[in-house]
Amino acid sequence: MDKPRFVIPASEAESMAQDSNLTVPQLLPTLVPSAKSLARPPISRYHVGAVGLGSSGRVFLGVNLEFPNLPLHHSVHAEQFLLTNLYLNAEPRLHYLAVSSAPCGHCRQFLQEARDAPDINLLITSSSDPYTPLSNFLSHRFGPHDLLPEDVPLLLEPHHNKLSFLSDTQIKLCNGVCAVGGELRYAALEAANSSHAPYSGCPSGVALVDCEGKVYTGSYMESAAFNPSMGPVQAALVAYVANGDGGGYERIVGAVLVEKEEAVVKQEQTARLLLQAISPKCEFKVFHCRSA
Amino acid sequence: MDKPRFVIPASEAESMAQDSNLTVPQLLPTLVPSAKSLARPPISRYHVGAVGLGSSGRVFLGVNLEFPNLPLHHSVHAEQFLLTNLYLNAEPRLHYLAVSSAPCGHCRQFLQEARDAPDINLLITSSSDPYTPLSNFLSHRFGPHDLLPEDVPLLLEPHHNKLSFLSDTQIKLCNGVCAVGGELRYAALEAANSSHAPYSGCPSGVALVDCEGKVYTGSYMESAAFNPSMGPVQAALVAYVANGDGGGYERIVGAVLVEKEEAVVKQEQTARLLLQAISPKCEFKVFHCRSA
Ligand SMILES: [Zn+2]
Ligand SMILES: [Zn+2]
Repeated sequence: MDKPRFVIPASEAESMAQDSNLTVPQLLPTLVPSAKSLARPPISRYHVGAVGLGSSGRVFLGVNLEFPNLPLHHSVHAEQFLLTNLYLNAEPRLHYLAVSSAPCGHCRQFLQEARDAPDINLLITSSSDPYTPLSNFLSHRFGPHDLLPEDVPLLLEPHHNKLSFLSDTQIKLCNGVCAVGGELRYAALEAANSSHAPYSGCPSGVALVDCEGKVYTGSYMESAAFNPSMGPVQAALVAYVANGDGGGYERIVGAVLVEKEEAVVKQEQTARLLLQAISPKCEFKVFHCRSA
Repeated sequence: MDKPRFVIPASEAESMAQDSNLTVPQLLPTLVPSAKSLARPPISRYHVGAVGLGSSGRVFLGVNLEFPNLPLHHSVHAEQFLLTNLYLNAEPRLHYLAVSSAPCGHCRQFLQEARDAPDINLLITSSSDPYTPLSNFLSHRFGPHDLLPEDVPLLLEPHHNKLSFLSDTQIKLCNGVCAVGGELRYAALEAANSSHAPYSGCPSGVALVDCEGKVYTGSYMESAAFNPSMGPVQAALVAYVANGDGGGYERIVGAVLVEKEEAVVKQEQTARLLLQAISPKCEFKVFHCRSA
């Protein structure tokens, strides 16, 4: 069996569509069943698949993830996975989205962080309705425009938070003893630098390493509505599921979180909880950073 | 200054409306500014007030709560507070709802747990639109009807989960040494018995006690969409804010959580995190229960 793929190049998506006499937007719902099969929902056993077309012509997949022994807010919905997948691949816009079930309000809200979110065309494969703008699914939206000036970058747009490590001493001290030093903490810093946290001003990033030494990063992504924000470990797990070889979370052996020490929105303890629940042997380190 | 009130009796609401030549639904938006003033949002400083009319004619207030030093998913939005307030007061239906800002998607989803949620009439005081059914704000909803048989009680309807403590030994052992024994654990058990957790089958309840010995309980309330679920500590904090004397969380000195030991959705560690963040000296105990 082929390694599951969560990004399909534009040229390939186009030939797949042509082979079936479809446009690429029409192709998306046909890919939803295979996306669904990649979901990891051990609590609900309710598989959700989402397939999106970005502005580059690439096609992105999203699936839902659930984590037993913790509250449900740790869950990642398929639409959140998909948007994170675009973020990981520096795709600035989502134009079309096909999902297997009606998106919940939480996801409709999270999608608002993308530029021109109301214009995203949404199709629910369990319904017979054609693509319909997201604005019809969440009218009178509350969103970034309610809180941010026009020129602040939105979720899928380039971010650079100008963060650096708090002190080299802390890091040098760790160099000798930490399995998860070196490269990993710089990967986590880079993820923190890409973090979308305009509402709290508390960016953060996580880097995970699996038992083969492969690194996966995730940036904290904030929602104007607060609760639908996506934690940095969750974002890194999206990268692990999307870019890894399909293995279990217990293959994650090291993790680094980078955040500000004095942050009013702090990820450390919750990140530790989630990592302990999914990979009890994972070594977890926190490094603090500051704005330049 | 009077102690803030979060429930207004039906007769009083009617005379307030008559005095202003208004109907009770028309009265609600006029109460939103005073609700807003009761919000506790130390992170965003964005005050939200919600005022709702229940089927008994009583009027309920809701405000947003935020908790520094933790991720934002711990936050309670005004609409969630309001629905929890109805729950605490055994009010089975919400008919009218006036809020200061457009409800976020997360809250529109949480509201779906109430019977006939699409018919709740919603007015946003910052807009000039009249009351409009919630179905217009969240069309093609995902909700309880997607997952539950018709006869399962919804959020505001009576629940009895038939839970009892796992073993008397555990409790007797504790009797001698726990400050938070006795009454508090039975209050938490009762809250767990009222918990709305039809999706995971993992009900839980929390009881808090303040430094004057006053007890506040909260039941875990699950959403069909998982993430917008409301944790049992959050629900108990709603009771503390709504029924307490307006003091800070540091006045909470004891807390008991009751949940199933083998639960796939487990609150213990997250409950501890939140309690430590808001009241570091609070003594926290967990008792396990089982279904009869
Ligand atoms: Zn969702
Ligand atoms: Zn909300």
